[in-house]
Amino acid sequence: MSGGAAAAETYVHPYVPRDLELPGFVPNFLTIVDIVIPYATGSLLAVLLVWFFSGRCARVCKTDRLIMCWWIFTGLTHIVLEGYFVFSPEFYKKKTPCFLAEVWKEYSKGDSRYAARDSGIVTVEGITAVLEGPASLLAVYAIGAQKPYRYTLQFAVCLGQLYGCLVYFITAYLDGDNFSTNSYYYWVYFIGANSSWTVIPTLIAIRCWKNISAALSADKKKKAQ
Amino acid sequence: MSGGAAAAETYVHPYVPRDLELPGFVPNFLTIVDIVIPYATGSLLAVLLVWFFSGRCARVCKTDRLIMCWWIFTGLTHIVLEGYFVFSPEFYKKKTPCFLAEVWKEYSKGDSRYAARDSGIVTVEGITAVLEGPASLLAVYAIGAQKPYRYTLQFAVCLGQLYGCLVYFITAYLDGDNFSTNSYYYWVYFIGANSSWTVIPTLIAIRCWKNISAALSADKKKKAQ
Repeated sequence: MSGGAAAAETYVHPYVPRDLELPGFVPNFLTIVDIVIPYATGSLLAVLLVWFFSGRCARVCKTDRLIMCWWIFTGLTHIVLEGYFVFSPEFYKKKTPCFLAEVWKEYSKGDSRYAARDSGIVTVEGITAVLEGPASLLAVYAIGAQKPYRYTLQFAVCLGQLYGCLVYFITAYLDGDNFSTNSYYYWVYFIGANSSWTVIPTLIAIRCWKNISAALSADKKKKAQ
Repeated sequence: MSGGAAAAETYVHPYVPRDLELPGFVPNFLTIVDIVIPYATGSLLAVLLVWFFSGRCARVCKTDRLIMCWWIFTGLTHIVLEGYFVFSPEFYKKKTPCFLAEVWKEYSKGDSRYAARDSGIVTVEGITAVLEGPASLLAVYAIGAQKPYRYTLQFAVCLGQLYGCLVYFITAYLDGDNFSTNSYYYWVYFIGANSSWTVIPTLIAIRCWKNISAALSADKKKKAQ
């Protein structure tokens, strides 16, 4: 069936479980390559800009600059991609190729709870887009300006991301773990695409924990002198 | 109908929505007073013990001692009460007066998603009982021993509790906000019983944020000297 089909025409959605009802569903216009290339290019541009400008900040080490690159990438993903999902309950009905709707039509093959508007998913994505997104961008600034709250802020966002991942995976497991079109989408989309948001926040959270503890130990010694 | 009814006898549950199916449901044996008194007494005892022993710790101020009392109370609530719920999916079928099952039979009048075993609720309660409960008890020790990680740990648990509350209330709203037997249970159980876990973690988190920032500022000045 073509994209220009009449409004009355109904399409069969590719999602699992098969009995999921999505009246008005319209299939993807873009391929996965058409979706990934703009996302990767846009992200790479933002990352390169932050890498370049962070080089001009005094007292910001290379690890901090790399972490700033992560925060710009994750912050924009939270605000733009996940923000669109949260406030667009009917994305799967889009009759014209809207890039952000295409992202979620495609991703729903890995987790149909997105198209089904599962309340747990909408809640976690809402918290991520509205709170963690802007906080990630603030982290870029806080590191660059070496603000005293920089580790606390990063630690908070990392914990939010990790809590979100826990809710995401545990609810899927408890609800039967049957939301992927096939095992390819399960491993590449559901597991693969989310793995960065479990590994990287864990590493950054550990680093923040250590740096805060070191500062408090130093402060304690200073006061004891 | 009496508590000693035959196994085949069926009871009508008091929960909303009315079409919620709970085969094997057995009504409460204990009244709300029978439930609250042991919980309040046990909590008060634990709190008094911590208040007494924390008075013997050197360099622990009164605010810290009060916060230690909160951590013992919330830690035991998470581990004992919420831990029981997480690992007892059939609590509403208990045919004998088991105190912990009675707690959740009663609380389900404020939020039937507990009896219904909603996956979001089980997930949030699981994270709370398994991670935040032991971490709260560790916070009692960390404050008492003035460990350098004490603020980071408390901050982490507070954020976990706040994230849990957000998921708890937002999913209820998205799913129609119709899980209380009547407005009394809505305001006293659903809103009232949870309000401490939004207000107190917010206050402690702000205090931790400020103390960490102060230590990092002091550390920065020291390095700059």
